[in-house]
Amino acid sequence: MDRIVECVPNISEGRDLEKLEKILDVFRGKRDVKLLDYSSDEDHNRTVVTLVGEPEAVKSVMIEAIGKAVELIDLNKHEGQHPRMGAVDVVPFIPIRNVTVEEADRLAKEVAAEASRLYGLPFFLYEKSASAPHRENLANIRKGQFEGMAEKMKDGMWKPDFGPETIHPTAGVTAIGARMPLVAYNVNLATNNLDIANAIAKNVRHINGGFRHVKALGIELEDRGIVQVSMNLTDYTKSSIYRVFETIKMEAQRYGVAIVGSEIVGLVPLQAIVDTADYYLRLENFNFDQVLETRL
Amino acid sequence: MDRIVECVPNISEGRDLEKLEKILDVFRGKRDVKLLDYSSDEDHNRTVVTLVGEPEAVKSVMIEAIGKAVELIDLNKHEGQHPRMGAVDVVPFIPIRNVTVEEADRLAKEVAAEASRLYGLPFFLYEKSASAPHRENLANIRKGQFEGMAEKMKDGMWKPDFGPETIHPTAGVTAIGARMPLVAYNVNLATNNLDIANAIAKNVRHINGGFRHVKALGIELEDRGIVQVSMNLTDYTKSSIYRVFETIKMEAQRYGVAIVGSEIVGLVPLQAIVDTADYYLRLENFNFDQVLETRL
Repeated sequence: MDRIVECVPNISEGRDLEKLEKILDVFRGKRDVKLLDYSSDEDHNRTVVTLVGEPEAVKSVMIEAIGKAVELIDLNKHEGQHPRMGAVDVVPFIPIRNVTVEEADRLAKEVAAEASRLYGLPFFLYEKSASAPHRENLANIRKGQFEGMAEKMKDGMWKPDFGPETIHPTAGVTAIGARMPLVAYNVNLATNNLDIANAIAKNVRHINGGFRHVKALGIELEDRGIVQVSMNLTDYTKSSIYRVFETIKMEAQRYGVAIVGSEIVGLVPLQAIVDTADYYLRLENFNFDQVLETRL
Repeated sequence: MDRIVECVPNISEGRDLEKLEKILDVFRGKRDVKLLDYSSDEDHNRTVVTLVGEPEAVKSVMIEAIGKAVELIDLNKHEGQHPRMGAVDVVPFIPIRNVTVEEADRLAKEVAAEASRLYGLPFFLYEKSASAPHRENLANIRKGQFEGMAEKMKDGMWKPDFGPETIHPTAGVTAIGARMPLVAYNVNLATNNLDIANAIAKNVRHINGGFRHVKALGIELEDRGIVQVSMNLTDYTKSSIYRVFETIKMEAQRYGVAIVGSEIVGLVPLQAIVDTADYYLRLENFNFDQVLETRL
């Protein structure tokens, strides 16, 4: 697979494993699609599925899976701690390899167009696909949840982007769109002074004038007696790991504080690691297809 | 596939594509084995095959492929510019992911044991698998080639490690063993003074007291008006890319010469790239399974 998109549908069923399996089965044994992971939470009554694959293959399997979820899940009977508005609550498309965010956006819109037509399900576009700024944030869209959504959608501000103008009677409404992969990245400082971590967090985060795609805050690692600048990089292609690291190192110097180390929590796209090696080694013309494991 | 070994058999047939296809077919459509690449050279009359896969699967496909090559290739009729001694000339096993060089060595020995038994073909162990220092280097083993090998093997120094004590009448003798992946790595210097590149090459290469797994020489890049320290890293896990880069940078400083950039030629194992990011970002507890693309 030369072109890979990731899709992480959140499904509003985390208890009835028989139903869940029928939905998961849609993802299995499909050509050019791999079910990478799924994780159910009974309290949340929700399952987060991770699949990767060739864009057209992911599109077609997602249309099928939405149909299966609409058929099996009745939100009128759904209880759980996690806010939700649809049988398939949210469907993000994430570019991974040789796919642009524009293509992921197109994919999201094609799935919404086709699934709304087939199943009479309304869709809101969110994140990079949002049709208006107030719709970028999922929490804004979902506010009111399944129970309040029919009323909310009467407001022109909340007319769906695809499908009928009110909720599906049992499957509610789904948010869909393109987003970049998140990188959870932390830098550990050789001090126990939380003020320093917070001051540096402010230097690098967007909200206080820092990098466009960085969210940051200072936290204490009590067992280690140090503090940490804890971050989410929401677009590592534009706010690079190494640039954030070097900036934190530079800011820490003014306090005479050294960097103990840094950590990447969870998954990170290969491109982010290659970008780092590329910068420090000043690589010329390096292409990540040269990395042996991407060809396996 | 959690565990991956690479195997790069060199087959003494680069002209008769019909024969070659019959051998390549052995690698195709096998579970847990991927034929990554093959490259034939008519002048050399030789084909270099690259396959990767789960160790036991690679072992079994290699035993089968050796059998097919022994059946089809007659070295008495073989002409070509490249030195060769066997229908399957050399079979290196290269650890790629979650496989140690010791396991690759064991694999090489198991293939040699089984293939010698099945086909009456003698094997020399070479590189990391060599049974004596004078057998580590493939060129030493192959000296005399197919035509001289029967005579050479009468000498106790050249008794094969597996199989009959003389050559197979049509398929000759095969070298087999474990080796680390090679990384071709060059660092470009902001000077046109070749003496400086050569002096630095001496500082870093093993033969002159440098890093154990570095071969290096200075070369001119005439079109760019600069010079380069051109290297092979024969074990990037022990002589790391970043350590070699930083040492060259340090040595260049004494001449007041800056580093223009560096380049990786061809494929590089993911681990080498991760090691680089790991060093510069001072990553704590980073595992390359966290790299998204290795899970696809």
